[in-house]
Amino acid sequence: KVSAMALFFPETQVTAKELFETNPDVLTAHNPDSQLCQLLSVLKSCTKSLDVCMYCLSYEPFLHVMEELSRDSNIVVRVVTNGDKGRHTSGSTTGEEKFPSKRLIQLFKKGVQLKVISMADEALMHNKFAIIDNSLLINGSLNWTENSIFNSYNDCLITTDPRLVFAYSQQFNEFWSLD
Amino acid sequence: KVSAMALFFPETQVTAKELFETNPDVLTAHNPDSQLCQLLSVLKSCTKSLDVCMYCLSYEPFLHVMEELSRDSNIVVRVVTNGDKGRHTSGSTTGEEKFPSKRLIQLFKKGVQLKVISMADEALMHNKFAIIDNSLLINGSLNWTENSIFNSYNDCLITTDPRLVFAYSQQFNEFWSLD
Ligand SMILES: [Zn+2]
Ligand SMILES: [Zn+2]
Repeated sequence: KVSAMALFFPETQVTAKELFETNPDVLTAHNPDSQLCQLLSVLKSCTKSLDVCMYCLSYEPFLHVMEELSRDSNIVVRVVTNGDKGRHTSGSTTGEEKFPSKRLIQLFKKGVQLKVISMADEALMHNKFAIIDNSLLINGSLNWTENSIFNSYNDCLITTDPRLVFAYSQQFNEFWSLD
Repeated sequence: KVSAMALFFPETQVTAKELFETNPDVLTAHNPDSQLCQLLSVLKSCTKSLDVCMYCLSYEPFLHVMEELSRDSNIVVRVVTNGDKGRHTSGSTTGEEKFPSKRLIQLFKKGVQLKVISMADEALMHNKFAIIDNSLLINGSLNWTENSIFNSYNDCLITTDPRLVFAYSQQFNEFWSLD
């Protein structure tokens, strides 16, 4: 099991095109060394709770994993996202659109819990982190968009340090309890 | 000494206005509990090297610390930044402008080493991390801009986990060795 890992993007071992020629379910087996597949594997390891706090999330492999996890009645998937126009979505499969996107609303209807944070003017809910089973934290500069994964330089840190997991969980719960 | 810490923004204990009514040098003493001052204190603890890899850095308290550190002949300050138009600068003291900004070029002339990464189209050098003395890592969603600190939700993780520090140092050095 991973206790600390760093993943750097853009992804070099797999292309977006290759992914969509494949069933997203076999992504991990397909190219286990790719940064993207390693990150998705960590998400798929979830057994109880997935808390996602993500400025932009539009890339289907991530949404697919969230959808699959939420089908398991033992797993609660919660998402906090930015309510304004996504600005990191260009180059993604969904393009620039108002958040929450149609796809996110679809996930919501299927059982993913959703909290949309809309702020004034230039202010953003700009976080990009996730907590798995209250014991593993993912953070960094990486938004879950196609452009962030395949075109831009981004970092993604994974840690099980309980002090950090606790601090980020508290922050997530603060978002969750906002009116 | 800090070995793991999480800071969350927007800053609530100090305002941008208060900062600039004060000498930036006394920031730490001025409001030590604020998130911003805690982050600046960590930067000021540098004794050998500060490696900054930051999509947008325009906020003067950060630039001021970098400038002060670079005056110390025992300290090497290196900066990797995005060469395209800064997109997280709105609301900052410098406003939207081409990167590197005049202020960054001024720092460069004063001894801060600078590497500007320009990418095609929508691709960005979107990282936001820093490594102090090859032993402490700062990462997260936080750009070093006024808007990021005072208006937006952002996270900032600090760790001395040697596995993570090593991985990020490698990535920094890869940027540094790019042609
Ligand atoms: Zn961003
Ligand atoms: Zn950004």
